Amino acid sequence: MPRSAIGIFDSGIGGLTVLKALCHNYPNENFIYLGDTARLPYGSKSPQTIRKYSEQNVQFLIHQKVKAIVIACNSASTQFPEKSYHGVPIYNVIDPGSAKAIATTKNKRIGVIGTRATISSDIYRQKIKALDSEAQVFSQHCPLFVPLAEEGWHDDPITSLISFRYLQNLLTKDIDVLIMGCTHYPLLKKSLSTIMGPDVALVDSGQTIAENLGSDFQSGLILETDQERKERMIRILTTDPSPILYALAEKILSTTTPLTFETVDI
Amino acid sequence: MPRSAIGIFDSGIGGLTVLKALCHNYPNENFIYLGDTARLPYGSKSPQTIRKYSEQNVQFLIHQKVKAIVIACNSASTQFPEKSYHGVPIYNVIDPGSAKAIATTKNKRIGVIGTRATISSDIYRQKIKALDSEAQVFSQHCPLFVPLAEEGWHDDPITSLISFRYLQNLLTKDIDVLIMGCTHYPLLKKSLSTIMGPDVALVDSGQTIAENLGSDFQSGLILETDQERKERMIRILTTDPSPILYALAEKILSTTTPLTFETVDI
Repeated sequence: MPRSAIGIFDSGIGGLTVLKALCHNYPNENFIYLGDTARLPYGSKSPQTIRKYSEQNVQFLIHQKVKAIVIACNSASTQFPEKSYHGVPIYNVIDPGSAKAIATTKNKRIGVIGTRATISSDIYRQKIKALDSEAQVFSQHCPLFVPLAEEGWHDDPITSLISFRYLQNLLTKDIDVLIMGCTHYPLLKKSLSTIMGPDVALVDSGQTIAENLGSDFQSGLILETDQERKERMIRILTTDPSPILYALAEKILSTTTPLTFETVDI
Repeated sequence: MPRSAIGIFDSGIGGLTVLKALCHNYPNENFIYLGDTARLPYGSKSPQTIRKYSEQNVQFLIHQKVKAIVIACNSASTQFPEKSYHGVPIYNVIDPGSAKAIATTKNKRIGVIGTRATISSDIYRQKIKALDSEAQVFSQHCPLFVPLAEEGWHDDPITSLISFRYLQNLLTKDIDVLIMGCTHYPLLKKSLSTIMGPDVALVDSGQTIAENLGSDFQSGLILETDQERKERMIRILTTDPSPILYALAEKILSTTTPLTFETVDI
């Protein structure tokens, strides 16, 4: 089914940063974005609940006949390690983020920030160590970053103060790369890079996964959509009516493709 | 069934402030507290989703054979106005908070703070106007207060800064009463009262509802538990394993009654 869409899901607005990168890199593809806003956030919840919700989201998207699924949420990615599910390739944001950090670091000292669920899972440390056993990983959970991003205080002195509170420990670790291990965090990038300074590279796993998908298009694992077809389709589905998400989608995607918004029950 | 419990529910930790007041006022009663932590928070969600979750919680508690239900969540109270459900009396936090504000104000200028859902519902204004048509109501939603309370930054300079941001408009309205229209907010009371100053009384609807229940015990609408029975029971149920809630329950209830914690599926 070469004309079917790529499915993406997140608990809320964070995955829009991944959708943006995918839309940019693959201008001919159709996308179905699912934001599980009725049950957000995931990052404060237990592994078993995050697994349950993620599985339901994946099944929903498969039912929509997507040709690939991108789990655009780190907390969900920690609980859904599958590489394929019922024959549909599954992409998470943790593998590409870890690989990018290893490719970027010079001193092998890597910081990771994320939700409580992501940091507790220790998954970044495990992935990075598997890629390079000499790398050292320093982690910090930052629970208020998601509500700050949802509140829209993206470039704000209060966000900078809270960022400093969370990041001050990492500032003493001489890291040269910081993985933004939550897809909401790129929305706060300005504060984060001001606090960390110019010598620390920030890894945005959404951008990285968008780059990585290219090889699977080339190998034919994902079939490219015919370039000569009609205008592409970007459907934004949420489990709760979410005007804030709709407004942010219009703003950050800033695409000429008209977006359609629907509320769905999972 | 005079020995059955009083049921209380909230999306998360906020309702513990109501449970605390009820435990204090009714030392012989048994309590079942339900925190819907798998789906928290409610205050950012739509009316229909909040109604659906609230109804499921009420049905769950009725299945536990409670003799009364206290909806210890303002966002849920906006969508569940029933006074009884399948014969079980239902109490919300909005009626007693509104009555207390009217009884307290001298200049009839009342402030209300709450979640986006509570403030959008306009329910406090309607309730207060019904009690006194001359009263003026000034409202402000404060979405970051719930995550700040959940993060435990209860008495913190950053919380004071955010409080000032949200409350600065109310400071110009010459109010003499401020309703804390979310059961999480009493956890931030120190910051809130510092910002509002000594001339503004803060209404804690949890305390108020605990006082109000007394008349229904006296009238026999709720049967009192026999004082000579065995030690009372306080069961804390959550829909997701929630160590932060358990720790806070132990801390703020500080009761000699042993608390039991269970995870339940709704």
